[in-house]
Amino acid sequence: MDHAPGDTMCPRYQQAVQILGKRWTPLIVRTLLPRPRRFSDMTTIIEGLSDRLLSERLKELESCGIVHRHVYPETPVRIEYVLTSKGRELEQVVEAIQKWADCWDEGTRN
Amino acid sequence: MDHAPGDTMCPRYQQAVQILGKRWTPLIVRTLLPRPRRFSDMTTIIEGLSDRLLSERLKELESCGIVHRHVYPETPVRIEYVLTSKGRELEQVVEAIQKWADCWDEGTRN
Repeated sequence: MDHAPGDTMCPRYQQAVQILGKRWTPLIVRTLLPRPRRFSDMTTIIEGLSDRLLSERLKELESCGIVHRHVYPETPVRIEYVLTSKGRELEQVVEAIQKWADCWDEGTRN
Repeated sequence: MDHAPGDTMCPRYQQAVQILGKRWTPLIVRTLLPRPRRFSDMTTIIEGLSDRLLSERLKELESCGIVHRHVYPETPVRIEYVLTSKGRELEQVVEAIQKWADCWDEGTRN
């Protein structure tokens, strides 16, 4: 990595963590990795996530260019959420977390 | 990764994200990657992090086996916080976030 980690805090890292560390966000990103999703698909997959919070998180992710809200002009209108290229590149982060989680499943402490 | 991401939520991923996604935690882990740190080193490096919250986070990280609190029996007593092997393996997560953050620095919005 570009920055020697730890001796000073990298503002880019800090900013990324501020976006990605929000509750539900890493779950939403993971859900969108394989394919675009409708709003209701996401609340089905992510147990406990309310409509209000999903809506809030999606707006945040749109505003920082991670998610695109695609409106298909059909009748009835169809809306899907899709990762942008910036969003798709979060796959490496999701995979790193998954790998760590699989390796250190509960029970195996240090 | 072991699990097809997205169609169902992997409970291990969800649990990892619950630990790692807490405010300050990814900054604390990053700070401990290069070397053990004293409490006051960490509050110096991580701007805005209060003693109370650092103490709380370190206890959480100890309880899930990511951080070890090392007490050197000297006079005065010296206490350092060090990543366990489980904690050191978070380097891959920190690096993935850093890489993503460096690549998508503000301004470059898909």
